[in-house]
Amino acid sequence: MKKVLVSGGCGFLGSHLIDRLLLRDDVELILVVDNLWTGRTRNLAHINDPRLDLAECSIESYASKTRFDEIIHLASPASPPWYMREPVRVIQANVHGALNLLGHLAPQGRVSYTSTSEVYGDPLVSPQPESYRGSVDCTGPRSSYDESKRCTEALLFESQRVSGLDIRVARLFNVYGPRTRIDDGRAISNFIGQALTTGALTVYGDGRQSRSWGYVDDIVEGLARFFWRDSIRYRGPLNIGNDREIPVIDIARHIQKLVPGTTLKFMPPAPQDPTNRRPDLTIARAVLPGWKAEIPYEEGVRRTLEWFRAELARGLEPLKAPEPLFELGARRKARTGTHG
Amino acid sequence: MKKVLVSGGCGFLGSHLIDRLLLRDDVELILVVDNLWTGRTRNLAHINDPRLDLAECSIESYASKTRFDEIIHLASPASPPWYMREPVRVIQANVHGALNLLGHLAPQGRVSYTSTSEVYGDPLVSPQPESYRGSVDCTGPRSSYDESKRCTEALLFESQRVSGLDIRVARLFNVYGPRTRIDDGRAISNFIGQALTTGALTVYGDGRQSRSWGYVDDIVEGLARFFWRDSIRYRGPLNIGNDREIPVIDIARHIQKLVPGTTLKFMPPAPQDPTNRRPDLTIARAVLPGWKAEIPYEEGVRRTLEWFRAELARGLEPLKAPEPLFELGARRKARTGTHG
Repeated sequence: MKKVLVSGGCGFLGSHLIDRLLLRDDVELILVVDNLWTGRTRNLAHINDPRLDLAECSIESYASKTRFDEIIHLASPASPPWYMREPVRVIQANVHGALNLLGHLAPQGRVSYTSTSEVYGDPLVSPQPESYRGSVDCTGPRSSYDESKRCTEALLFESQRVSGLDIRVARLFNVYGPRTRIDDGRAISNFIGQALTTGALTVYGDGRQSRSWGYVDDIVEGLARFFWRDSIRYRGPLNIGNDREIPVIDIARHIQKLVPGTTLKFMPPAPQDPTNRRPDLTIARAVLPGWKAEIPYEEGVRRTLEWFRAELARGLEPLKAPEPLFELGARRKARTGTHG
Repeated sequence: MKKVLVSGGCGFLGSHLIDRLLLRDDVELILVVDNLWTGRTRNLAHINDPRLDLAECSIESYASKTRFDEIIHLASPASPPWYMREPVRVIQANVHGALNLLGHLAPQGRVSYTSTSEVYGDPLVSPQPESYRGSVDCTGPRSSYDESKRCTEALLFESQRVSGLDIRVARLFNVYGPRTRIDDGRAISNFIGQALTTGALTVYGDGRQSRSWGYVDDIVEGLARFFWRDSIRYRGPLNIGNDREIPVIDIARHIQKLVPGTTLKFMPPAPQDPTNRRPDLTIARAVLPGWKAEIPYEEGVRRTLEWFRAELARGLEPLKAPEPLFELGARRKARTGTHG
């Protein structure tokens, strides 16, 4: 029987992964370590299972004598306005968090990590294979997230090389779905939250920037197969996503059709917003035979919209829009213009 | 009067920077924090100045109530065989070290950081301007160094953006000179050490890979101007190096001429060894008017050779060659070949 630690298990993605973990019959303990920065205990409130425990704590300062057979390191905000506001904490959660977690692993234990398509930055190659080295500005306004994910990948792959650490590293592409915070700030939840409250959908730039939107059930299915199937010998990095690439503006217009009477509000582009993003799934198809992201955005958006509607009906707090992205970039732009 | 903390001050570069710091008359304390991993106290043994103090401690676990007006974060091995052997410690020193140091800074204090041309990876652009995003494999055998430097840059620039932290970030290109360890493992010290002991200079690959060799006095002069001139408004990243690009094999042949009777021994290439490296110094010329790396490799190599010769005459330990680079990559290569 296994002990599993999940950092960030109260978050959007984490809570769905916990649901899947509880279906396993070889697990005796699932300890969620979460500081509730972006995570929420209500994401796990539907669970009544004595194997689940919660330590409310930042992962970089978590301490215990328990050693875990599996550690799944999810702790990190994943939305630009959140990680741009507190970049130091983002690096602490990812890199320092991973360093700390290595000390809590049982012998022969496995560390699984959710990295991101952001390691590719604003890619010059499409679709992006795992071997693509990316185009990331390591001094830019997205760098706390992009570079701490890259550095944590380095930590894990290098630990694998020098000491044989058992690792799994997945790179996720734009996951969305129920349990996203209404103030998360990424496109789909933003559009839906706005459609159901203010009625004005904010589009940054011209909306032609494209993403590959992965509905959470599909992504968690991929993670479950990759993270806990012992027969898999490939450790990553593994792209997990939906390779149907759709411009942001198409999502906005689709949601406009679903919620009549909504309008589009165009804002300046977010700083260093990637122009495109699409996974090359060649390795995923080989490593996870039978898996694919099957739910089209039309269906995923419908389910997400329903969930948000129900949440708002239950009396969730009113929409708190996140700080506009473009303001976050202003100071930085002024600085880089000064040479000498 | 200022209190200055220098992490890694017992190292090759650090000890030269300490010599320069002691010439300042506005400094009351220079605390060197060094765990003597690659640093050596004998690099500072020539100094007799009551302002200099040493804490033998890893920078990520350094604790004190003293707050410093300037923090110069150098702590990290910089040579591939050293950082490839203990990648976790490298990430700890750079990233966790920097996170810890932020808590030891006085209000309005400045953090200066020696980043590296390795943030450019194996560059596809030459010379490399600071805006070049690089070509780094974040899962590769050099990634602990490259990615922890990139991530620490992100930490500092993002701290600057969100909270106005005063920072200086330099990217150094292949520094060499006296006080390099004889077992350092980088080309010039390796060739000289081998020329003076075994007589066989090991060249990895065909030796056509090029570097821009910066003699330590030139580099430290650049750092001194950039790190502690208050009038400079540009915070970095700033390339500091010599832009005369020379193939490794030319250095080996030059040293053969200086030490007759030596031979070349060709070894398999080091894993992911960059093919080229040359700084674009446009910004450096604007930010540091009058500064340039003036000492040609012929003169720098002569001085370094003299220094090594004197050290060996003083009874230094015999040459301990570092573990061959190519063996470090072997396991990694086997792993990435396995998909599914």
